[in-house]
Amino acid sequence: MNTSDVGFQCPFPFSQYPIITMAHGAGGRLTQQLLEGIFRPAFNNPILQQQHDGAMLKLPSERIAVSTDSYVVDPLFFPGGNIGKLAVIGTLNDLAMCGAKPLYITCGFILTEGLSSEVLVKVVAHMRQAAIENNIAIVSGDIKVVERTASAGLYINTTGIGALPPEYVIAPDKIQSGDAIIISGDIGRHGLAVLSQRNNYQFEPPIESDCAPLWGQVSQLFNEQLTPHCLRDLTRGGLAGALIELADSARLTFEIQEDKIPISQAVHAGCEILGIDPLYVANEGRMIVFCPADVASQTIACLRKFSDGAMAECIGHVLPKVNHSPGKVVLKTSFKTSRTLTLFSGEQLPRIC
Amino acid sequence: MNTSDVGFQCPFPFSQYPIITMAHGAGGRLTQQLLEGIFRPAFNNPILQQQHDGAMLKLPSERIAVSTDSYVVDPLFFPGGNIGKLAVIGTLNDLAMCGAKPLYITCGFILTEGLSSEVLVKVVAHMRQAAIENNIAIVSGDIKVVERTASAGLYINTTGIGALPPEYVIAPDKIQSGDAIIISGDIGRHGLAVLSQRNNYQFEPPIESDCAPLWGQVSQLFNEQLTPHCLRDLTRGGLAGALIELADSARLTFEIQEDKIPISQAVHAGCEILGIDPLYVANEGRMIVFCPADVASQTIACLRKFSDGAMAECIGHVLPKVNHSPGKVVLKTSFKTSRTLTLFSGEQLPRIC
Repeated sequence: MNTSDVGFQCPFPFSQYPIITMAHGAGGRLTQQLLEGIFRPAFNNPILQQQHDGAMLKLPSERIAVSTDSYVVDPLFFPGGNIGKLAVIGTLNDLAMCGAKPLYITCGFILTEGLSSEVLVKVVAHMRQAAIENNIAIVSGDIKVVERTASAGLYINTTGIGALPPEYVIAPDKIQSGDAIIISGDIGRHGLAVLSQRNNYQFEPPIESDCAPLWGQVSQLFNEQLTPHCLRDLTRGGLAGALIELADSARLTFEIQEDKIPISQAVHAGCEILGIDPLYVANEGRMIVFCPADVASQTIACLRKFSDGAMAECIGHVLPKVNHSPGKVVLKTSFKTSRTLTLFSGEQLPRIC
Repeated sequence: MNTSDVGFQCPFPFSQYPIITMAHGAGGRLTQQLLEGIFRPAFNNPILQQQHDGAMLKLPSERIAVSTDSYVVDPLFFPGGNIGKLAVIGTLNDLAMCGAKPLYITCGFILTEGLSSEVLVKVVAHMRQAAIENNIAIVSGDIKVVERTASAGLYINTTGIGALPPEYVIAPDKIQSGDAIIISGDIGRHGLAVLSQRNNYQFEPPIESDCAPLWGQVSQLFNEQLTPHCLRDLTRGGLAGALIELADSARLTFEIQEDKIPISQAVHAGCEILGIDPLYVANEGRMIVFCPADVASQTIACLRKFSDGAMAECIGHVLPKVNHSPGKVVLKTSFKTSRTLTLFSGEQLPRIC
């Protein structure tokens, strides 16, 4: 394998082991070879070099956020992203949604026997790249191998640690009546990109995943003293899922204007053809921001400074509190009707992240 | 299901959903049902109740240890343990091996469709029990569902966070020439227990896994001012794997007396019959301790105060440093011969942890 295109010197003997076997996960010489041939050169940093049972770290703060997620997206590569990039950025975004500056992640790989070694290296190279670009270190890892499934593949768990600011708390229970609800960009791209790759649909123009880090936008809000009440990224379950969960946690009613929600022509058309609702389609680089109404326009202006935030828009607001009422999300449609959003039983698309 | 025997009120509708389906992992209503019906009641604590994208924590110390591991043991239940207990204790033990007091863990579940809901609840109940017994909180979690494999099952990733003491560092590079090498108990039980369950071997007497937490013994060493130079638990790869890795990291030679290594009659006989080497069999509640020779007997006495440490024994020592020599492990056999231990290519037993 030409290792120059993966961005690091990769001494793994590809010709000898073109595919991963059960023995690569068994803790012997072949496991060592995977570690020394792929993972250590890719993720190299002083903490990993300790070669200890765990990573020993000094944090800049005693208040931290911790988040864990497993990534099982199928297929492994899709327009605009891949499982490696997603596994780093998805978990960093969960930290950013707590207002935490991402510092470290751990990664646990579960490989299925029969996985191509070259595919594994490409995934690892994308994780390395995402770690470098987001200025975080991968500090602890683990590899297991399990029996082959229908298609050989891999699953990645990442757990992130971020430093919380000492002065404020961003959380669902900080959402207040009257808050503006701002979305940071157009929705539906990640889900449709994965679906198009999985089923070989050719959208024209092609739809790329929105997979991107959100900490840049969040930290800029902090820098401009526009600390939001709550943040939530729009992953599995989409915009609708995120709104319903938060309305339920906060026991408040959110009113959303359908015609304010940014959706590209391509996603709109793709969803029409496939008969799926873009409000429920997964995203990997979009968030909603709850902030006081009087700073909504400044908040939107701040987000729009970023290319990923160029389509930021206020899509609704939080209604006055009604005692003993459970939370709900009311969608005002473009036909001037209203409907209450509810969670689907399952999802339109399995294994989307 | 009679939920009294799992130790928590479990409102999951077992009769409606006797098995897990792809839709349970899709982020919709069925995912909510899993969370509210099983995971939140089992792992309930104030941090999980934040219902945020990540857990927000205050640590007692800025120096922490972090460790991640995925658990894929097959079968899920075996004499002396199960995947749930193992997933908590295994990761806590990795923290303890850094000298860190375990505080928090996260858990990422990957379920395969077709898994019995009752089996899932039993696994979760054992995790809950292990968390309570070890005084740690499960602070962040995630559930994904993937297609069925040969046998329906589940994989669990846990990531642990522990507080490091400010005053000392326990690490492979602290191992010194002359150090005593002490083992905390008899070896080979976990591997043989899993193997017997998987293949329906009937050992007489039955062999139970040694799966047990190590922090109690480690913290007692600290309390008695017997701070070791290095600690390592003997998991995948067994005693031999741990020694070889550490000798390699430290670039020192370890000399081990075979007849000092505690092995039960049952494990000895089982290994003879099956033709496997107990030195390479996985353990889940045993460690080796490197300490100055002059405190070896006190260290052994300290470990023996614990039932899991009752068979603690000095099994060898670290030879004087030879310049430019790579590390190695020399075994002095009961026949007065010597052999150098090397890593197996794979392992004798796949999916052991």
